Parts: sequence; C-alpha cells; structure tokens
Amino acid sequence: MHISERGRTIQASPIRKFKPYADEAIGRGIKVYFLNIGDPDVPTPKPVIDAFHSFNDDVLSYGPAQGFLELRQAIAAYFGHYNIPLTADNVIITTGGSEAIHFAFSAVADPGDEIIIPEPFYTNYNGYASFASIRIVPLTLRVEDGYRLPGRKEIEWKVSRRTKAILLCSPNNPMGTVYTPEELRRVAAIVKEHDLFLIGDEVYKEFVYDGAAHMSVLELDDIGERVIVVDSISKRFSCCGARIGAVITRNADVLQAILRFAQARLCPPSVEQRAALAAYQMGMDYFKPVRKEYERRRDVLYEGLLGIPGVVAYKPQGAFYITVKLPVKDSDHFVVWMLSEFNLDGETVMVAPAAGFYSTPGKGLDEVRIAYVLEVEKIKRAIKILRAGLEKYQSLFG
Amino acid sequence: MHISERGRTIQASPIRKFKPYADEAIGRGIKVYFLNIGDPDVPTPKPVIDAFHSFNDDVLSYGPAQGFLELRQAIAAYFGHYNIPLTADNVIITTGGSEAIHFAFSAVADPGDEIIIPEPFYTNYNGYASFASIRIVPLTLRVEDGYRLPGRKEIEWKVSRRTKAILLCSPNNPMGTVYTPEELRRVAAIVKEHDLFLIGDEVYKEFVYDGAAHMSVLELDDIGERVIVVDSISKRFSCCGARIGAVITRNADVLQAILRFAQARLCPPSVEQRAALAAYQMGMDYFKPVRKEYERRRDVLYEGLLGIPGVVAYKPQGAFYITVKLPVKDSDHFVVWMLSEFNLDGETVMVAPAAGFYSTPGKGLDEVRIAYVLEVEKIKRAIKILRAGLEKYQSLFG
Repeated sequence: MHISERGRTIQASPIRKFKPYADEAIGRGIKVYFLNIGDPDVPTPKPVIDAFHSFNDDVLSYGPAQGFLELRQAIAAYFGHYNIPLTADNVIITTGGSEAIHFAFSAVADPGDEIIIPEPFYTNYNGYASFASIRIVPLTLRVEDGYRLPGRKEIEWKVSRRTKAILLCSPNNPMGTVYTPEELRRVAAIVKEHDLFLIGDEVYKEFVYDGAAHMSVLELDDIGERVIVVDSISKRFSCCGARIGAVITRNADVLQAILRFAQARLCPPSVEQRAALAAYQMGMDYFKPVRKEYERRRDVLYEGLLGIPGVVAYKPQGAFYITVKLPVKDSDHFVVWMLSEFNLDGETVMVAPAAGFYSTPGKGLDEVRIAYVLEVEKIKRAIKILRAGLEKYQSLFG
Repeated sequence: MHISERGRTIQASPIRKFKPYADEAIGRGIKVYFLNIGDPDVPTPKPVIDAFHSFNDDVLSYGPAQGFLELRQAIAAYFGHYNIPLTADNVIITTGGSEAIHFAFSAVADPGDEIIIPEPFYTNYNGYASFASIRIVPLTLRVEDGYRLPGRKEIEWKVSRRTKAILLCSPNNPMGTVYTPEELRRVAAIVKEHDLFLIGDEVYKEFVYDGAAHMSVLELDDIGERVIVVDSISKRFSCCGARIGAVITRNADVLQAILRFAQARLCPPSVEQRAALAAYQMGMDYFKPVRKEYERRRDVLYEGLLGIPGVVAYKPQGAFYITVKLPVKDSDHFVVWMLSEFNLDGETVMVAPAAGFYSTPGKGLDEVRIAYVLEVEKIKRAIKILRAGLEKYQSLFG
C-alpha cells in the first residue's frame, strides 16, 4: 500500500511550512509582523461583502461549468479597458487562480512534458507541476541583474522536445519585476519559432507603479492563439478567500479542453461569483487609491532595505513582493531564528525564505521574499526589527 | 501547437452535453421537466443562507489549506453519530466532492495507474481520470442483477500490476444501490489481498430508504489504513453551488500527500466553509424529513416506471437516482428526440442517457438515468410524459 509518486514528491508549501514557528512565537506573547505571505490587509470592497448579504436563492444550486455569463462578460470588459478586445467566450471562470494554473498546465502538457519558467517563481507552480505530473524547467535569473530575462539564445537552451510552454508571471511574484514589451516580444519569438504556448500569470495586473503601463501577453498579436492567461480576483479586489479566478485565451482547442476539465468539477462557487461580479462593477477607478497605497509601501520598504548593510535589492516595478539577498548563508535558518530566538521589544518579523521559489537546488539560499501587505507604519517597524535581527544574527553566526 | 492528450481525450460531460436541446425546447415554449441532473429542489437550509448574511470580515482572506478546524471537527462529529470515530486530523476540506475525488485519485495513482470502478458509474470519475492521466478499469454490472457486485473471482480478474485502488460509490449514483456489508467485506478482502486502497464515495450517505442503515467503508476495521472517503455537503444540505467537500482517511501518508495538493491550491472558499459549519450545526434531525421526501419520490417514480411496458427497473435503496432499461435501441437518440420532436400538451422530460456512465464502449445504450429531484406531483406528470413519449417513439422507430 504505497501512495503515488506525485503524492510522495510534491513539495510542502515553502511559504506555509514555517508557520508553526510563528504560532509558537505568538504563543510566547511575541507580536509577529507577517511579511511572508501575499495576504493583503486592504479591506475587501463593500459591494463584495454586500453581495454575500443579498444572496437569497431558495436553493444554492450548481452554476454553469464555465462560470456565470455575466461575470465572464465583466472580465472581458475589464480587459477591454486595457484595450485588449475579448468576449465572454474567451473567458472560463475557475476556482481561484490556482485552478486556472492547473487547467492551463493540463491543457498544454501531458505527464513528463516540460514548461519553462523563469526562477525564482511562484512556488505553487511546483505543486501543480507535481500534481499534474509535468516538469518545470527553471530559467534562473539573478538579483544582481534586477531579475531581467536573459537573451534569446540563453532562453532557447532550455527548450527541449518535451517543452510545451513558457510561463511568464508579470507583474512578478516573487521578484516584483514587470516584463518590458521587448522582453515579452523576445519570448513570443521563441514561442513561435518552437511551436509552444505562452502562459501569462497576470494576477497582479493593476499593481504597476511609477506610472508605468503593464503589457499583457494577450497584446502579443502575432502569437494570439498561443497565449493563455491565468487570472484571479484575489489580489485585485482583496478577496483571496473567495477562490474566483479565470482562464483567458483565444485558442478554441484550449477553451474546449479546459471547459471539459471544468465540467468534471461541475462549477466554481456560485455566491462568490456574484461577489466577483459586484467587484468588477465598481469600475476602474477603484484601483487608483489601492495602487497608490501599495506604491507608498513599496517605497518605504525599498528605502528601508537599502539602508540595511549587506542587503542587495532592486526596486520592484509591480505586484507587492520584493526578493532580496540578505547577508546570511541560509535564509531558512535565519527565518526560523527570527521567530524562535529573536525579538525587539517583544516583536519580530516573518519573511519567506526564497529557496522554495527556486526549483534549482541550492539557489536562493541567501534570499528572502518580503510581501508589502501591511500598512506603512508597520512596514517601518518591521524594517527596524529586521535590521536589528540581521545585526544580531551576524554577530552570532558570522 | 497541440494541446495535451488529456485535453484532447477528456470526455464532454454526458449529463450536460444535451443541455442545448433542452434550451432550444424551452425557446420554443416547451416546459421541460429536468430529471437528468442531480440538482435537488430541496431548499437550502436557512442557517446556511444566514451564514452568508452574517459574513462581515474586513478582509476575505485565505483560510488554512486543510480547511477551518471548526468545520473539520464538525465533520468528524457527524461521522461520530454513525459510530465512526474520527478526529479533525482525519479530515481535509476540499472544494466540492469533485476536488476530493481528484485528490484521492492523485494520492494513490500516478499516470498510467489503474482504479477499478463498478460501472455504470458517476461520469465525472472519467473526467478526473483523464485530468490525472490515470485509467479507470470498469467492472460491468447489469440492471437485470439489480446491479449487485459479482463474486470475488470476477472482481479479482480486473486487478493488474497497475491497479492502485477500487472505488465504491454507495449509496450509488447512478444505480441507486446501497452495497451490503457482505459486498463491502468481499471488496475489502480483495483490497487487502492485493495491497490496494479502497476509495469510498459516500456523498449520498443520508439518502438510504426503507429504514435500512448505510455501512461506510470507514467501518471496515481490518483495512482501516487503506480507506479513503470522498465526501460533500452538496446533496446532504442541498447546496451544490457551495463547493464544499472533504477527504477523510486514517492513512497518515495519504493525509500528508493530500495536504500538499491542498496547499498548492491555497484553500477552499472561506465563506462557504462557514455556511457548511452552520449546516452541520443543525444536528442530525435535519435529515429525517428530507430523507422521507426523497423516499416518497422514489416510491412514486419506481411504481410509475413499473407501469411502463418494456421498462426494466429494480427498486433503488438509496441516493436519488435510478438507472433503468428502456425499450429503445439508442437512448442518446431517444433523449434528443424527446426534447426536439416530442411534447405532451406543451411539456416534455429530460433524462440522462446512460452510455456516458459506462466506460466500456457499447454498454448502457438502452439505459437512462433518472434523478428524482423534483417534487412528487412533477414526478407523476413526468412519468406520464415519458410513457407517452416512449409509446410514440416506438411507433416511429420500432
């Protein structure tokens, strides 16, 4: 009686596996600033909450497998605001961006097939790769290069006979980069040349700073049918617990395959879809103050990190993460030590060790991801604690 | 640019693929009685609706990957009412019973591995088998035998080197059977002998009629660690659209694997988990009138079907389905004809062709599944229409 290989080899979530140390710290009366996970503190918009309150059907019944038409239309219209023409037919609602990733992976790849992803990358891609029995081929980026994509040849070295797709996450979790139109076109040319799909994870689309624009992979006109976008309302509208996402593509075969995957799981949650619709109906002005708030947090965090000796950081252009190099040898050990051994006036900080965001063994050991999901004053305090912790840690472990 | 094999070969939902004919009939002003899908008309309990109304968190944030502890405790307590001792540690909350199936399949089987399932079976097992790249090996049952399980030898013929599990759904969708303790023990002996897992789909646990008791595979003490139950609140509390289910097992390795699958998709919907908790807090008395109502419907439907010449039916003991043999050659054609060509005083009936519930090609062509999810008067009317339709159909097509 053995469980499956995928069940044995799937990673434990590197973001969540240190949670017990945080719980234990809290148990000892320590206040912990959680900068390890992208769970925003921005209030869920009132129309979303109201949608739950106004639910009054006699029977909470199944919806369509592809999601409610009104929501699919609203998402198409949302992309229309970015001058990306779509119809509801291009949109299938999923149970969170997570399911969108799973559907996209499974639609393009069979067991043993490969998907190329720049690393460090969102760690749950690993989970879904195991779950779907496919291989992620990492393309390692470097903090010293500001995590920019390498040249065409270097990317092409990663393409094999089993390669089915390249995945780009932009704005990026965990790097905070926003790929430039030139970078996207570089990858598009490779995708076309090698007959691949391009999966775009764009769940942080609104969170682009310094007045810059985000270019979606859906705007790469000459590879229109090769593009699949995975999307989510979790960060966009601060409702991570709603589990509403979407897959967006112009490829009819992919739509058909994903519709059938979707039929197997019947439908996404019904009430949450109405809540999502209410969120989209707020219009595009909703994002301005939210973006501004995150931009302020980014500025405070980035400035603060620059002031800590030995920290290597570049300025994130989007999302609400930064991955930085710390003056430590093993960030797993440092993170646990911060929770178990250290506090500054009864307070400490939890960040995420970056090794779990790499699939190449040994990479990212001196890096951590910091999510700027707390308000500015708390971020300032967290930086002070982190700085003091690093000083102490270096004095102990050199 | 080809999509994956699993994307190409996954079935379209046989329950949903005829929906366009129903929509078209409705467009022509025909009233359609939907007996094709298990979407109950029993009102969702008020405490469930109230749970949505009382949701008032500032941020709709992620919950734990394994689900809220209170809900896991409530589900353990629910099984306790059936004298099945469990703790919250044995329970992982899933996004619907669908995800529970997917997790269970993936925890025991790798691509190419096999799971034995008596057919006809719940058609979405096929979808998940494709999605997870595993093979379902059908064990064909016959309506003339009342869909009872065959002897041990006949079941063992299906076991190969790649067999990882046997799945039993009881009370059964689509057959309406409830496996006897003797049948369960027969399968348990095979599971033990051949070192397999036993997956129990028991989402219709409450719906057992004639005062009979349901035996859970969790009661098979000598294979305790081999048992995985997939569960759901969809039918139990008439909230199919909530997408809350659970995986229940005493096997620590399976729990660990499924927890990691669960971490990849972050968490099940948060508000719906509270709604589910409210449902369980109603206590066991809730089920009595609901079960009684379904039992009445079953009686009316079964009696009515017996009165139609050429119909072969046995009396279902549980769930809210019956699969019957009709005097037709091709029930796909008959179902479409009923929607497209036939009506009785402006009304017609939609049932589900049974071929989609078999994975053996050519099986079930003269069978249909009928769900008794409408109130008694509507079932009576539906039987009249079905009877008239069958007479007309036979006069046309012999």
